[in-house]
Amino acid sequence: MTKLSSPLLNELLASFLTELRGTFSEKEPRGLYAPIDYILDLGGKRVRPLVALLAGRIYGDDDNAATMPVALAVEVFHNFTLLHDDIMDDSPLRRGQLTVHEKWDVNTGILSGDLMLIQAYGHICRCPNTAAIPALLKTFNRVATGVCEGQQYDVDFEVRDDVTISEYLKMIELKTAVLLGGALELGALAAGASQEEADHLYAFGRLTGLAFQLQDDLLDTFGDSSLTGKRTGNDIIRNKKTFLFLKAVEVLGQDGREELNRWFTTNPEDPAEKVERVTAMMQEAGIPEAVAKLRDEFQAEAYAHLEAVSGEVEVKAVLRELAEALLQRKS
Amino acid sequence: MTKLSSPLLNELLASFLTELRGTFSEKEPRGLYAPIDYILDLGGKRVRPLVALLAGRIYGDDDNAATMPVALAVEVFHNFTLLHDDIMDDSPLRRGQLTVHEKWDVNTGILSGDLMLIQAYGHICRCPNTAAIPALLKTFNRVATGVCEGQQYDVDFEVRDDVTISEYLKMIELKTAVLLGGALELGALAAGASQEEADHLYAFGRLTGLAFQLQDDLLDTFGDSSLTGKRTGNDIIRNKKTFLFLKAVEVLGQDGREELNRWFTTNPEDPAEKVERVTAMMQEAGIPEAVAKLRDEFQAEAYAHLEAVSGEVEVKAVLRELAEALLQRKS
Repeated sequence: MTKLSSPLLNELLASFLTELRGTFSEKEPRGLYAPIDYILDLGGKRVRPLVALLAGRIYGDDDNAATMPVALAVEVFHNFTLLHDDIMDDSPLRRGQLTVHEKWDVNTGILSGDLMLIQAYGHICRCPNTAAIPALLKTFNRVATGVCEGQQYDVDFEVRDDVTISEYLKMIELKTAVLLGGALELGALAAGASQEEADHLYAFGRLTGLAFQLQDDLLDTFGDSSLTGKRTGNDIIRNKKTFLFLKAVEVLGQDGREELNRWFTTNPEDPAEKVERVTAMMQEAGIPEAVAKLRDEFQAEAYAHLEAVSGEVEVKAVLRELAEALLQRKS
Repeated sequence: MTKLSSPLLNELLASFLTELRGTFSEKEPRGLYAPIDYILDLGGKRVRPLVALLAGRIYGDDDNAATMPVALAVEVFHNFTLLHDDIMDDSPLRRGQLTVHEKWDVNTGILSGDLMLIQAYGHICRCPNTAAIPALLKTFNRVATGVCEGQQYDVDFEVRDDVTISEYLKMIELKTAVLLGGALELGALAAGASQEEADHLYAFGRLTGLAFQLQDDLLDTFGDSSLTGKRTGNDIIRNKKTFLFLKAVEVLGQDGREELNRWFTTNPEDPAEKVERVTAMMQEAGIPEAVAKLRDEFQAEAYAHLEAVSGEVEVKAVLRELAEALLQRKS
C-alpha cells in the first residue's frame, strides 16, 4: 500500500495499535492465549479497523470511544479467519513469520482461533453505546456467516471446473468484500448512525473490496513484480481460476479455450513458458482491459455510496484516499 | 442415563427437538451447512438445553418462548466443541456414527464448527426478552472462554507428569461443569430471573457437573460394564491421569506410587494384567471411597444452591431428578 499521507490515518492507526496491544494478556493457559497475541502482533495494514474508526469519525465519535471496540472486533475476527485458513491451506508462513499451526501445532491453531472468535463477540459487547449493540450483533453475525460461506465456496471451487463468473464474484464478495463493508457498517452503527447511513457505508466497503480483489488478481498476472514485491504469474502457476481465467474462457474461441484449460492442468517444473503463453493469451483476449473496466465500475459505484452519506466531508475524503491507496497498492 | 420419568422432561425434550430440527436448512454451500445438521441430529442426552428450559420454567416461562433460543445456543455450542474436539483427538466415531472430519474432511470440520459458534451467538441474540440479552451475552462469553481454557488444560496435562489434584479439578470444571452451569444461568436470565438467582443455578449446575465427571471417572474403572455399556478400565489402558490416578498417587507410599507411575508408562497389547493390578492398587488405597465422598460433597453443595433458589418447587424437583439420573447414569 502506498504510504498513508493523512495525519488522521496515522493518528487512528497509532491509537488502534495501542488499544490492540492493551488486550494482550499474561492469562493462563499460555498455550491458548500466547498464539492469539502472536498472530495479532504480526502486523498487516489494519485496513478493517481503520475504516471502522473512520466510519465512527464521520458521525462525530471524535475520541473513538464508541467505535474502538468494533475496530478491535473486526481485526480479531479477521485474524481468526487467517489463523483457521492457514491451517486449511497448510500455509507455513504468514507475513513472513511462522503460522500459528507451524510455530505451535494444528490443535493449538484450532482452539486459539475458536477463542478469538469468542473474543471478537466480547469486543462487540463492550461498545459503550449500548443502544447500538443489538444492531452491531446482527450485522456481525451476518458478516461472519458470509465469510464462512465464502471460504467454503473457495474450497468447493478448487475441485469444480464449471464455476461461472457470477459464482466467482459471489465468492470473493463473501470471502473478502463483506468484511470490509461490515467494518464500515459496524463503525457507523457504533457511533450512532442510522441503519440507512450504515448501509451506504457497507456498500462502499463491499464494492471497494470487490474492486480490490479484481485489482489483486490483475496485478498477480500483469503487475510489475518490482513494484508489487510478488512473483508475477503466481495464480497461473498454481492453476488458480481467478476472474482473469474465467473471463478468458468466456471470451476465447473453442481452440483458445481448450489450450487455456490444458495449461491449467499442468504443473511444469519450470513454469516460465506456461506463464508467458497464458499471459499472452489473456492479453490478446483483452482481459486486462475487461478486468480494469469492471474494477472501475465497482469503484465508481462505491464512491457514489460514499457520496450519499451525510456527515463529515473531511473524514469521507480520508476514506476515499484510503480506498485509492488500497487499489493502487504496490505492496 | 436412566429413563426420564417426569412428563415435563419428556415434553421439554420433544419441544426442543422440534425447534432444533426447525433450524436445519437447505442453505448453500451444502459443504458448510450439511455437517452442522448432521452433528446436531446425531442425538445425545440434550442435558444442557433441558436444564436451560427447566431453569426458564422455574421463573414462569411456561411456553419456553424466552428460554428456547438459549437452549438452542447451548446445544449448538456444545456440539461445536464436540466437532472441534473430535478433530483434535482424531476420533473416528461420535455416538456410533462417523465424526464430521471422517465423513467429510478436517477442513470442513473446522469451518462448519466455526459457523456453529457464530450460530450459537445468533440464537442468543434472538431471545425475545431483549432486556436480558446483554447479561446473556456476558454469561455466554464467560462460559465459552472457560470451555476453551479447559480444553487447552486437558491438552497440556497429557504431556505433564506433575498435574495436581486441584489443577485436575479446575480442568474438568472448565471443560464440562462450566457449560452445564452456564446453561442453567442462561435459562434463568432469559426468563427474567435476577443475576443472584441465576448465580445459584449456575453453582448448582457447576457442582453437579463436577460430581458427574468424578462419577464418570469412577465408573470407568470400577463400573459394571454390563450396566455402563463401556469397557471397564479404559482410562487405565489409555494412561489417562484422572482424579483416581492423582488421588492414588497422593495416598500411596513411595513403592506404590512408583509402581503406579510405571504402569502408566506402559501400553501392553493385552491390558488385562495392567487393568487388574492398577484397579486392585486403587481399591486397596481406598480410592473409590475417596472419589465417592468428594462426589457426594459436590452434589450436596449443588442441592443446597438449588434449595436457595426461589420459584416453582415442582420444577426444582424435576431438576433434582435430572441431576440424580445423570449421576446414576447407566448408559
